[in-house]
Amino acid sequence: MKENGRTEREALFDVLAAGIVCHLGVIVDGHPMVVPTVYGFDREHLYVHGSVASRSLTAGTLACATITVVDGLVLARSVFEHGVNYRCAMIYGVPRPVVDDQEKLAGLRLLTEHVTPGQWEYARQPSRKELAATTLLALPLAEASVKIRTGPPDDGDGPDAALEVWAGELPLATGWQHPVPDPVLPPSVPLPAHIAARAGTRLG
Amino acid sequence: MKENGRTEREALFDVLAAGIVCHLGVIVDGHPMVVPTVYGFDREHLYVHGSVASRSLTAGTLACATITVVDGLVLARSVFEHGVNYRCAMIYGVPRPVVDDQEKLAGLRLLTEHVTPGQWEYARQPSRKELAATTLLALPLAEASVKIRTGPPDDGDGPDAALEVWAGELPLATGWQHPVPDPVLPPSVPLPAHIAARAGTRLG
Repeated sequence: MKENGRTEREALFDVLAAGIVCHLGVIVDGHPMVVPTVYGFDREHLYVHGSVASRSLTAGTLACATITVVDGLVLARSVFEHGVNYRCAMIYGVPRPVVDDQEKLAGLRLLTEHVTPGQWEYARQPSRKELAATTLLALPLAEASVKIRTGPPDDGDGPDAALEVWAGELPLATGWQHPVPDPVLPPSVPLPAHIAARAGTRLG
Repeated sequence: MKENGRTEREALFDVLAAGIVCHLGVIVDGHPMVVPTVYGFDREHLYVHGSVASRSLTAGTLACATITVVDGLVLARSVFEHGVNYRCAMIYGVPRPVVDDQEKLAGLRLLTEHVTPGQWEYARQPSRKELAATTLLALPLAEASVKIRTGPPDDGDGPDAALEVWAGELPLATGWQHPVPDPVLPPSVPLPAHIAARAGTRLG
């Protein structure tokens, strides 16, 4: 894929930046299992929390991590031509449990900063014990594909275009709402700027 | 799970009603593959478009369909206690290609009406040829699990509660935006009420 001068590699990082949860597919006892989990990434790896999926990873089997951003519905004249505008990245690879403390800290930092920019320096960072209790997986980004659909339905130039049926897109947008303090939080603790600034902004 | 008088079965249907895309995990040539696809459902089955996944289904192998609604971030005092508020349904079963025309029409209607209520009667319904060209899969809802997390972080009653760190939830909401007409749509075709009424409402 090379569209408007953007490479598939650049499109991959755009989708990774736009999403917040990936769906990780692994094989457990011969059966597929798909679990949602937050992620972080750099230019080489996708980092995911491995608590749920880790029991399947001893064999070093392949996994598939899919990140999907739904941008809206494609409403056509015919039901048959209906579809979805979306951006989707699929990453295939053998997830590697991260064991080195420095790499684990770096991966957790990427994950935290992807989900909530500014939070790594603000919240209390993992202790040695917490770090040991955290399972982090690194999935190489070497094998990935990106699929993107945008724009109006495809039946505007066919016979159905003569029908008196409205056609177009119904966009979908996801946005951050106002933060809700923990009921037991002392009122003296201020809302930090990096969280306050997010309310009202869009994800993706 | 039985919480506040709701059974896990009722929670399953709540999550199915709240989502719009499922992530379908199948095994292709021994490797897991996770593809996003829209779905519909009744009390017995999840119906999904099978175009992408169908090549793996000849063997009648198991699939896992996961529907996830992300409700927000759980921001704790420590990075370790961070999490996500979400509702997730995982359905395990052997997808059956729907071959009977009446069942296929009924399944497509469920799918269309779940994604865009009112659209099945409004748009042109599938012709015989289109119906034959559509792959629809029925996944039994007999084996399913639901996971839900709500509420504030869990470190409000531990030693970290003494830290001067803001903690709480950062909710995420997804909403329908204003419809965008197909550029080639004649201006004389009005926007139908069932689409117009959706703009500004929330998904899930």
